[in-house]
Amino acid sequence: MPHISLPDNLYGIRSLAMYRPETGKPLYELAELLLRTPSSMSGAERELIAAFVSAGNDCHYCCSSHAAASRYLFRDESGVVDLVLENYQEAPISQKLKCLLTIAGKVRSDARTVSTADVEKAKQEGATDREIHDTVLIAAAFCMYNRYVDGLATNAPAAEEKKTWEEMGYKMGAIGYIPPQQVR
Amino acid sequence: MPHISLPDNLYGIRSLAMYRPETGKPLYELAELLLRTPSSMSGAERELIAAFVSAGNDCHYCCSSHAAASRYLFRDESGVVDLVLENYQEAPISQKLKCLLTIAGKVRSDARTVSTADVEKAKQEGATDREIHDTVLIAAAFCMYNRYVDGLATNAPAAEEKKTWEEMGYKMGAIGYIPPQQVR
Repeated sequence: MPHISLPDNLYGIRSLAMYRPETGKPLYELAELLLRTPSSMSGAERELIAAFVSAGNDCHYCCSSHAAASRYLFRDESGVVDLVLENYQEAPISQKLKCLLTIAGKVRSDARTVSTADVEKAKQEGATDREIHDTVLIAAAFCMYNRYVDGLATNAPAAEEKKTWEEMGYKMGAIGYIPPQQVR
Repeated sequence: MPHISLPDNLYGIRSLAMYRPETGKPLYELAELLLRTPSSMSGAERELIAAFVSAGNDCHYCCSSHAAASRYLFRDESGVVDLVLENYQEAPISQKLKCLLTIAGKVRSDARTVSTADVEKAKQEGATDREIHDTVLIAAAFCMYNRYVDGLATNAPAAEEKKTWEEMGYKMGAIGYIPPQQVR
């Protein structure tokens, strides 16, 4: 049960954005910019970084929903999202994305440990300054979203409700991040 | 030295907002809403929560600047900000603020550990749902800002440059959070 009175027909950050629309606005705007606005990194890859960080923080709501969005955007029939969440170093993804996930993981646990060597390695694999910037900010932002959702004990569908998560992933992937007040 | 090419005449998040104004906009908007927009919690108290979380994350830039903003807003002649950063349980602040700092500290380390008892105790000391919400979001947001600033190894003045931090605290406290592009 949530720690404060939230609308009970909504989950996770949607219930919080409905509770306090003023803060919901920049939070949704940031998610849309980082995950959906055109970039040299695909939406599927950026959602995967979000899911990876959320998995590291054990945030059930954010991990399940962003993994679902990434699966939708990857047209993921080969299960790459789950392979990354299990062990990204062995997953069938590019070396560049592995380097970016390493940076994201360090930002999550202690951002001061991101080293010049980590960044140089990513650059050698083709990562641009902008991709490194966005990876760090996605990882940092999910350290916020995860804590916001879990610190107030918001509701979430059970892990087994696969269809609910799949629908959520479709909406996030295809439609993007629109504050709940603006959804018709 | 920063991990990516940033304008070298700016520090911390200001250099990042100048590098990528699109993401700077919602990040500054969120800070202004959480720390400066009128609320039942004073700006000094909210800056103190931000400094407290940043201290826990060992983020020199965010802790020094928000502690300076809090000192400015408290007209802090008795050193309450430093007493809180040393040991908030023994500091001369209200029981309510102590309860909110306990919640903020848990959000920082593992948000899932914020308990019903923590929240009930804060409510007994007079905290409202809105104050609990804002405390959790301030703590979560600073877990983002801290990681963003440190994960990209942004520049910051040295701890000893007391006058520089004091001026920064004055600007943050008196003027608020304006993206660097908009400062004249």
